[in-house]
Amino acid sequence: MLKVVVIGSGNVAQHLISVFNQSGNIKVVQAFARNPAALYHLLTAEKITDSYPQIEEADVYFIAVSDNAVAGISSNLPFSGRLVVHTSGSIAITQLDAKNRRGVFYPLQTFSKQKDVDFSQVPICLESESEKDYAILKTLADSASGNVYSINSQQRQSLHIAAVFVSNFVNHMYTLGNSICEENQISFDILKPLIQETANKVQELQPKEAQTGPAKRHDTATIDSHLNFLTDDNLKSIYKLLTKSIQSHT
Amino acid sequence: MLKVVVIGSGNVAQHLISVFNQSGNIKVVQAFARNPAALYHLLTAEKITDSYPQIEEADVYFIAVSDNAVAGISSNLPFSGRLVVHTSGSIAITQLDAKNRRGVFYPLQTFSKQKDVDFSQVPICLESESEKDYAILKTLADSASGNVYSINSQQRQSLHIAAVFVSNFVNHMYTLGNSICEENQISFDILKPLIQETANKVQELQPKEAQTGPAKRHDTATIDSHLNFLTDDNLKSIYKLLTKSIQSHT
Repeated sequence: MLKVVVIGSGNVAQHLISVFNQSGNIKVVQAFARNPAALYHLLTAEKITDSYPQIEEADVYFIAVSDNAVAGISSNLPFSGRLVVHTSGSIAITQLDAKNRRGVFYPLQTFSKQKDVDFSQVPICLESESEKDYAILKTLADSASGNVYSINSQQRQSLHIAAVFVSNFVNHMYTLGNSICEENQISFDILKPLIQETANKVQELQPKEAQTGPAKRHDTATIDSHLNFLTDDNLKSIYKLLTKSIQSHT
Repeated sequence: MLKVVVIGSGNVAQHLISVFNQSGNIKVVQAFARNPAALYHLLTAEKITDSYPQIEEADVYFIAVSDNAVAGISSNLPFSGRLVVHTSGSIAITQLDAKNRRGVFYPLQTFSKQKDVDFSQVPICLESESEKDYAILKTLADSASGNVYSINSQQRQSLHIAAVFVSNFVNHMYTLGNSICEENQISFDILKPLIQETANKVQELQPKEAQTGPAKRHDTATIDSHLNFLTDDNLKSIYKLLTKSIQSHT
């Protein structure tokens, strides 16, 4: 039985506590949270602390807090020689205090409070300083997900940037599409099957093979009529830059 | 029983012939195609012609060809007073020759030869010049899809532009994410659940509510480290412009 302590009370912390609670061979012995109420649906009150000296002994400590708080919390931990991991895509393993054995347990997914995620499909990217610690993290990750990868800090940084493109920027394209619909009294629902199919296609095809549209076809008449239709400068700039980028990639 | 003639042999023409063939109350009496072989899996050879004078009588004629060929074909049709529709997102109804009754039957989806599409989920946008013709098009559309919308030419143009954002530009974000992965020896597979979930989220949430990431959080440290990591000027420009755009929309 592996004992874990989860530090944090946000989306990732809650998902970790929830999947570890469901696992037969992992025990969440404690959570550390300044906002204990956020965890009452997952843990009883006596299992939640906000006091560093009261943190219990465990095999692994998960620091699942906002990026800028990770280093400070890792330094505040009142023990050494134990396995301490963070869950962030954008922080190097070396930002954790070296007094403990360090690792990373990064679930690559977009978590919103409003929508449940099937954690068993979430890729988990692991990094550690020793093979022995990797094996411990692998056991924990396997219990949570079917997709576990070994990823070093530089790869994780590039992966996080790639995720910004394929998720944050993609969602912003949805926002822009939605605003164009709203301005023209069209329901955004009409675009939803297209959005779904566009994501489905690259589950099977290489993205480059899946590219369609006026930019790819070098259909200047349609591109010009679209630019003529768009009055917003921001939309025009994005349309031009991405059209140019598509054409330079084909 | 409604009789239709389909003009064209590409993706959309093939999908239309296929769904109409499966419907009980619609008969594809003929296809007009310069490349008949592309349709042999759907129609017998004697049902395919490439000669204008041999086009048979039908209730509706579908012009499902590339955008720049639509107007010319509609003028070449050797009859008048019949219902002729095109299937394009970016052409006004008025580009069809006025000698016939005009309409639009625009299936809003991304069609690739490499991947099947469930046509019953595809939104179909209809436009006509009379209520009577609209009723005919509605019967045809209902037999093919569960999502049928009345959309005028200006709305359809804006919808097509919105589709460029939520599909063509989105797919290009996947291409850029893939290239970042390749450069850093990471499998693009790691990003696929994230891509799927990002599309799933906006089936339920408003895109603006679903936005996450460093731009949304105004996390300057992460944004700067990403821009520092990216060496390609095109990627840097896109990262900057879309970060700015996300921040101006929140």
